[in-house]
Amino acid sequence: MARIKLGMVGGGNDAFIGGVHRIASRIDDHFELVAGALSSTPEKSRASGEALGLPRVYDDFKSMAIREARLKEGIEAVSIVTPNHVHYKAAREFLKRGIHVICDKPLTSTLADAKKLVKAAESSDALFVLTHNYTGYPMVRQAREMVESGDIGKVRVVQVEYPQDWLTVQQDFKQAEWRTDPARSGAGGSTGDIGTHAYNLACFITGLEAEELAADLQTFVQGRQVDDNAHVMLRFSGGARGMLWSSQVAPGNENALRIRVYGETGGLEWAQEDPNYLWHTPFGEPKRLITRGGPGSGAAAERVSRIPPGHPEGYIEGFANIYSEAAAAIRAHQSGQAADAAVTFPTVGDGLKGVAFVDACVRSSNRNAAWVKL
Amino acid sequence: MARIKLGMVGGGNDAFIGGVHRIASRIDDHFELVAGALSSTPEKSRASGEALGLPRVYDDFKSMAIREARLKEGIEAVSIVTPNHVHYKAAREFLKRGIHVICDKPLTSTLADAKKLVKAAESSDALFVLTHNYTGYPMVRQAREMVESGDIGKVRVVQVEYPQDWLTVQQDFKQAEWRTDPARSGAGGSTGDIGTHAYNLACFITGLEAEELAADLQTFVQGRQVDDNAHVMLRFSGGARGMLWSSQVAPGNENALRIRVYGETGGLEWAQEDPNYLWHTPFGEPKRLITRGGPGSGAAAERVSRIPPGHPEGYIEGFANIYSEAAAAIRAHQSGQAADAAVTFPTVGDGLKGVAFVDACVRSSNRNAAWVKL
Amino acid sequence: MARIKLGMVGGGNDAFIGGVHRIASRIDDHFELVAGALSSTPEKSRASGEALGLPRVYDDFKSMAIREARLKEGIEAVSIVTPNHVHYKAAREFLKRGIHVICDKPLTSTLADAKKLVKAAESSDALFVLTHNYTGYPMVRQAREMVESGDIGKVRVVQVEYPQDWLTVQQDFKQAEWRTDPARSGAGGSTGDIGTHAYNLACFITGLEAEELAADLQTFVQGRQVDDNAHVMLRFSGGARGMLWSSQVAPGNENALRIRVYGETGGLEWAQEDPNYLWHTPFGEPKRLITRGGPGSGAAAERVSRIPPGHPEGYIEGFANIYSEAAAAIRAHQSGQAADAAVTFPTVGDGLKGVAFVDACVRSSNRNAAWVKL
Amino acid sequence: MARIKLGMVGGGNDAFIGGVHRIASRIDDHFELVAGALSSTPEKSRASGEALGLPRVYDDFKSMAIREARLKEGIEAVSIVTPNHVHYKAAREFLKRGIHVICDKPLTSTLADAKKLVKAAESSDALFVLTHNYTGYPMVRQAREMVESGDIGKVRVVQVEYPQDWLTVQQDFKQAEWRTDPARSGAGGSTGDIGTHAYNLACFITGLEAEELAADLQTFVQGRQVDDNAHVMLRFSGGARGMLWSSQVAPGNENALRIRVYGETGGLEWAQEDPNYLWHTPFGEPKRLITRGGPGSGAAAERVSRIPPGHPEGYIEGFANIYSEAAAAIRAHQSGQAADAAVTFPTVGDGLKGVAFVDACVRSSNRNAAWVKL
Repeated sequence: MARIKLGMVGGGNDAFIGGVHRIASRIDDHFELVAGALSSTPEKSRASGEALGLPRVYDDFKSMAIREARLKEGIEAVSIVTPNHVHYKAAREFLKRGIHVICDKPLTSTLADAKKLVKAAESSDALFVLTHNYTGYPMVRQAREMVESGDIGKVRVVQVEYPQDWLTVQQDFKQAEWRTDPARSGAGGSTGDIGTHAYNLACFITGLEAEELAADLQTFVQGRQVDDNAHVMLRFSGGARGMLWSSQVAPGNENALRIRVYGETGGLEWAQEDPNYLWHTPFGEPKRLITRGGPGSGAAAERVSRIPPGHPEGYIEGFANIYSEAAAAIRAHQSGQAADAAVTFPTVGDGLKGVAFVDACVRSSNRNAAWVKL
Repeated sequence: MARIKLGMVGGGNDAFIGGVHRIASRIDDHFELVAGALSSTPEKSRASGEALGLPRVYDDFKSMAIREARLKEGIEAVSIVTPNHVHYKAAREFLKRGIHVICDKPLTSTLADAKKLVKAAESSDALFVLTHNYTGYPMVRQAREMVESGDIGKVRVVQVEYPQDWLTVQQDFKQAEWRTDPARSGAGGSTGDIGTHAYNLACFITGLEAEELAADLQTFVQGRQVDDNAHVMLRFSGGARGMLWSSQVAPGNENALRIRVYGETGGLEWAQEDPNYLWHTPFGEPKRLITRGGPGSGAAAERVSRIPPGHPEGYIEGFANIYSEAAAAIRAHQSGQAADAAVTFPTVGDGLKGVAFVDACVRSSNRNAAWVKL
Repeated sequence: MARIKLGMVGGGNDAFIGGVHRIASRIDDHFELVAGALSSTPEKSRASGEALGLPRVYDDFKSMAIREARLKEGIEAVSIVTPNHVHYKAAREFLKRGIHVICDKPLTSTLADAKKLVKAAESSDALFVLTHNYTGYPMVRQAREMVESGDIGKVRVVQVEYPQDWLTVQQDFKQAEWRTDPARSGAGGSTGDIGTHAYNLACFITGLEAEELAADLQTFVQGRQVDDNAHVMLRFSGGARGMLWSSQVAPGNENALRIRVYGETGGLEWAQEDPNYLWHTPFGEPKRLITRGGPGSGAAAERVSRIPPGHPEGYIEGFANIYSEAAAAIRAHQSGQAADAAVTFPTVGDGLKGVAFVDACVRSSNRNAAWVKL
Repeated sequence: MARIKLGMVGGGNDAFIGGVHRIASRIDDHFELVAGALSSTPEKSRASGEALGLPRVYDDFKSMAIREARLKEGIEAVSIVTPNHVHYKAAREFLKRGIHVICDKPLTSTLADAKKLVKAAESSDALFVLTHNYTGYPMVRQAREMVESGDIGKVRVVQVEYPQDWLTVQQDFKQAEWRTDPARSGAGGSTGDIGTHAYNLACFITGLEAEELAADLQTFVQGRQVDDNAHVMLRFSGGARGMLWSSQVAPGNENALRIRVYGETGGLEWAQEDPNYLWHTPFGEPKRLITRGGPGSGAAAERVSRIPPGHPEGYIEGFANIYSEAAAAIRAHQSGQAADAAVTFPTVGDGLKGVAFVDACVRSSNRNAAWVKL
């Protein structure tokens, strides 16, 4: 099969996530990166594009969208990996020209933008894929499959957390700078950058959604304009309750996303930093360590695995699974057929829920952590 | 030194914690158990006392208090290990007769009783020791010492949790029965039985107290009269924030008390089920695994250790440390001297705080998790 | 039941293991320490005895044996906790007077002494209990029970290791000094002090014995007279093969005894520093974490447990289990009845095997690690 | 930079390692796979090549070597991923035509072939890269760098092991079949397939080589023609001693390569299944957990890392690092310049050492585990 021609918006020289997207798009050989508008200024964009050896480099995303849409061999999909406040503006240009969008999270920096982006996606024939990449990990798929199969019974309690420590002190480099600027990142700090991942993961695995939440946001580093620590209580549809903790000021935590789900008949526990393991306890039996590809690991995990058990797959592979799912969906779309029912990726709707989560956290916190609806 | 003569109230044949107290009192050879009123009925009390070979067995705690106070070689201290609602009534009888009290937690089943017990203790010359036994673990002492020494800087975030799974389903045996009966256990279920431990541990290690909390209590098992899962947000004096989770319906968790404390310059992490380890991360340096008695383990831990590093001490030893601290305090008291400044044990005041914590959780939860003062 | 009257030989002020024996003898309340010859000189012995408040203190073990045997209320058992070279001489005096012996490991410092001690024990009516204390851990009992029940099929491979790091450099304090003196410790260094534990554990769990071994002993610290690191290959009866590693020069290992046993249908893994866990893998199924007292933990572990799962028992409790087994055997002996079939403790025969193991290691190593019979 | 044009020998539809090589070659975008002779029969080779969409598919490796060497845009490098006995025959054809070879391990199935391959490589201008992929892990590079820098002092003890469980029972699928056939795999079973990895890793990290070894090989599964478990004692140059255990019959071990290195002043521990962690203990200080990219992680690890700490890199990334090092070397070679001094990959000489290791194991075991020189 021919590779899908891919463009990229953002992801210039000094960005972190752009490079991840590029590797992720390449690993399973479904995409070929051929065009880019990689930075917010034409000069930087050109420099970054040349460094990558891209065939076509643009000054800005709009001219890229216009021209690529007209090219016979123009891009079929675009990855948007800019700071959050650009997502909507950029995505809109491609969606309306029928170019599929693979967009980094959170969906947008404001709820208003998120709603507009949903509309833009709905009125486009093109697909919209959001890279809540942690849903790409095989053992996260495994957990979801087990909950769905009733392996732990009706869900009662969800404990999800995403602590980091890199913002324990004031940081001035680029990654820190825009992520703590509400104009670019959105009103949420830790809630937007990592809390949305945690919330998405909880929903993805349990199949539930929060109906209301109470959030106590804090900013511990003086002068910071957004939260760097968030304590959130959640009430899910169906009666399950949850806690969510996101923090960027917890020394000793690099990227410690972790989820624990407890149901009427069992429990599941997973940690991002050791992603090939899933703990499963059927109530009244010993705890079991299910490994990716090992005994007890099922079809949902198998679909997104590459190598045998004991050979750890990591963050990049999980991320790549989102790209491979996107490729499957795009190819089905191009062939006019429905994608395989197993194809799973985060949608614009999931993105809206994430932004609504941040919005609710901020609203709640502003009202002294009162319960607010999502 | 002669052993301190000890009596026991509660702790009959089918109790769990009574046996723990007996071993804990024996391990360092400071106490000799010589009298008991071990059960709520005279028959059971006698049967249990005979099974233990106690020299003096009583029908009830009151007659025991009266008679032992008169004996020349009567008990000098008493352990109260009954269900919670008996603590105050029993403790009062011994306190007013100058017999030192070592009492299980939570202090009482009601806040009113707790306040009365504080008064009873204050008007007595005798000591009152509460067995929040987790404060006896060497690495908990280590953590407290490190926070006090400024090793992690000013505390910002406290994450404490105490999940168990034994009440995932309806249980009818004795331990479960009284613990889920508000008349005997108090208005809190998981909050009272284990949440108080978690809250006490957070305060003990950080030296902070919560000023207000918001609690969302749940009862997942149908027909249960008290909470079996609790989500609590905490605001500490000085600006630190915390989350506390207690649960008895989390399959795969046996007795998984765990605390993480993050300050401006470092983090500490400790888990009860692996108690000889303390993780310490100075921000910007690799995580360090401090072991009981190993390099980096200081004086506070050493005081309450018995054996070299690598030889795990457990729950019983931690519990015994409370007894040994009590012995040191009792002997100092008997000699008319101040106890060594290092002697540390939970007091009736700590007990009151615990009951106030439960009371606040229930009040908050009844008001839809509104913030309430402690 | 009245406590068994216990004496102690060795274990004076500056000893480590004497204190452990004393706590272990006390924890389950089966013994009362009433006499001692605690040191190699009369003065030190008296000072140590007085510090402990012992009713009867002796200048040396022989006078203690003679006098206690004559006393109406004399000791019924004696703990021998001296350096190794004294074990035989001391034990002999008590055995021949019908006083039960609980002796620290290794059995003796020489194979000749070990054989004589076996004879002494055989010709005595008294019991001989060797404190290979790691066999007292509940999850070690569990592992043995599972192997015996066929849960992992016929044993193929045994990997056992016991690394420490305290002798990484030259040490001059008392514990190090006699342990590295062949006249007192025996010809083995790490092999004798900890290798015997590892070998005993392997035999205890698997029910097998080594028929031959090849050992490569090293002494890394200059001037040391005994091995401080040992690599041993083992061939067990029935065809199983094993490796044993003991080391006192492995930085980062405090007391890291660990065993892994693999059979035709499953595997078991246990580590002394985390003793409440046993990993069990039935081939083709997920790994299971069996916890002391938790689901899957059976009768053999339960017999020697005190508290519920999740409440860690440690080294002292495991050690105490040997004492409690000894008490059960002594009481049965005193009553003229057979002890309960479940009563299990290391015997003088096990001790002989341990000394033979050391002897074989030294013989093999002297012949360039040739295979030698045990 | 233009991608290096790559061919592949072996790695057809039902192979495991071929797919790994293909992903590994793609991840950092240095290679483009353009030709292949993917199977031992022309039909299968064609089918596999078409499935992969390869531009040029050949019936056999020889015709591929001949033709590609003549093409103007022919392959510049070839990956050889066949069963072991084909390595030499295939490599020879490409080496002699100046095509760089990236070859799977072990180097060959016989020592004679290995020696011939060394000569072939020496007389060729082309590079030879052996995929002992575990040396590509960042934290393995970190360990090597630390040993070299003297962070643990002079090495004394090396414990390396590589247990698996997939051959616990007789297996008949293709991967098992050729790996247990001495004609294709070589005289070693577990020693050849995984023992060579373990031995290579020990040498890579310590910078040492074994001078002699004593090996006790076993075949536990009836009818199997090669060892499935091996116990090996090692004596390294400079006086360090080691143990190596390889096994394919250890239930509960998926791919549990693990190494521990102890020196005069510290210890290092690393496990392949959790590859982003390296434990470092400076003697007398707490154990430190160094994470890939985290504090304490140095330049050697950084060179081969892609993403920030806390985002686990896995087996594929480690494997890809070998490819990226190969690319750097090839490009330097093509430009006529020396490669950067930091470029590091396993060579044909390392491969010879691996085959010599297997040969020595078999020789030693045949002589009842006598010491043999390497």
